[in-house]
Amino acid sequence: MGEQRLKKQFAFVEEIDKEKKIGRQTYLSDGNRKENDAEHAWHMAIMAYILKEYAKEEIDMLKTIVMILIHDIVEIDAGDTYAYDEEAKKTQNDREQAAAKRLYGLLPEGQGKELVKLWREFDKGVTPEARFARALDNIQPMMLNSLSGGKSWKENSVALSQILKRNQNTSLGSQMLWEYAKENYIKPNIKAKNIYDDSKSDLPSSGFTKTSD
Amino acid sequence: MGEQRLKKQFAFVEEIDKEKKIGRQTYLSDGNRKENDAEHAWHMAIMAYILKEYAKEEIDMLKTIVMILIHDIVEIDAGDTYAYDEEAKKTQNDREQAAAKRLYGLLPEGQGKELVKLWREFDKGVTPEARFARALDNIQPMMLNSLSGGKSWKENSVALSQILKRNQNTSLGSQMLWEYAKENYIKPNIKAKNIYDDSKSDLPSSGFTKTSD
Repeated sequence: MGEQRLKKQFAFVEEIDKEKKIGRQTYLSDGNRKENDAEHAWHMAIMAYILKEYAKEEIDMLKTIVMILIHDIVEIDAGDTYAYDEEAKKTQNDREQAAAKRLYGLLPEGQGKELVKLWREFDKGVTPEARFARALDNIQPMMLNSLSGGKSWKENSVALSQILKRNQNTSLGSQMLWEYAKENYIKPNIKAKNIYDDSKSDLPSSGFTKTSD
Repeated sequence: MGEQRLKKQFAFVEEIDKEKKIGRQTYLSDGNRKENDAEHAWHMAIMAYILKEYAKEEIDMLKTIVMILIHDIVEIDAGDTYAYDEEAKKTQNDREQAAAKRLYGLLPEGQGKELVKLWREFDKGVTPEARFARALDNIQPMMLNSLSGGKSWKENSVALSQILKRNQNTSLGSQMLWEYAKENYIKPNIKAKNIYDDSKSDLPSSGFTKTSD
């Protein structure tokens, strides 16, 4: 019984090694290669701990970090869906639900259910922890994109309106971090033309108010 | 003031991206490439959460996970010291102390001190959290080495006595996990001659008692 439980737990722990092979669109800060899901989750988890004082609401830190660590595990089966790939996003939900069933199904039932619940909570983004985690899920790649000279934004011809749409709820997780990201990662890259400015208004100086729609 | 604090925090968060470039000797389970420190820390952190019930003593889970997430950050400057490289291990401490000073010094003072303390605690291995974290720091690569067909053990001609020496305190973190690792990751690889059996006794059947010295 105890042996069976431990075997199941190791089956899961062994399987998630594959997350290290799930590539993302974001380059590391030096621009030499793209990062993978495991690296992204590690980076976000440390950011959550270092930047916790800026969460908009009170959050359970352990819950937030575990949520962050596991939030992309479904991509082992479902693949990474690029934030600006509208076609892939149509099938994303079905692919990820099936993946959650298989992957978390490797665990003893109680633990599997707990992690599925945590992942769904992240996915829906309707709790304080999920809002903060999702804010970091947007800010971490934004930071790396900026550090790499906007390489991924340029390669994918990303427009300001897409970034603002993707980040429409970032301020709900952390107003401070969203302000910092705008000033330090977005505005300089609009100026450097790494982000295509498709706004008709006087962005970047005031157009960012759009994001609080 | 608040702005300066946030800038320092982001300076640290940006800098640790480099941990993704610190290579280890361990191959991913498919044997195609070696893993890096960030991936290793991510994997260990999830293992800590999934396997927490096997910790030998009561542990603070959040503290354990944060300790794990940051435990290799010093290697950004100091490099990875392979567990079986006796020459490199002589200078490891000096290199890592200097690295901790520079890297954690990027943070606001209080946070920097907190993380240095946590890293030193991991390094010394004398608290329940550090003992459990260090057990996982040994078991995670052992698991991957076994899954990749003992590739790293074979390449480095690792002997059983070296593995047992490295793991002399693993059972202090978790007796159950150490037993599991012996049965499932070490013994089969001695049998398959992926680990060089340099014991004179009747290992692997009983010689493992050495580890509780």
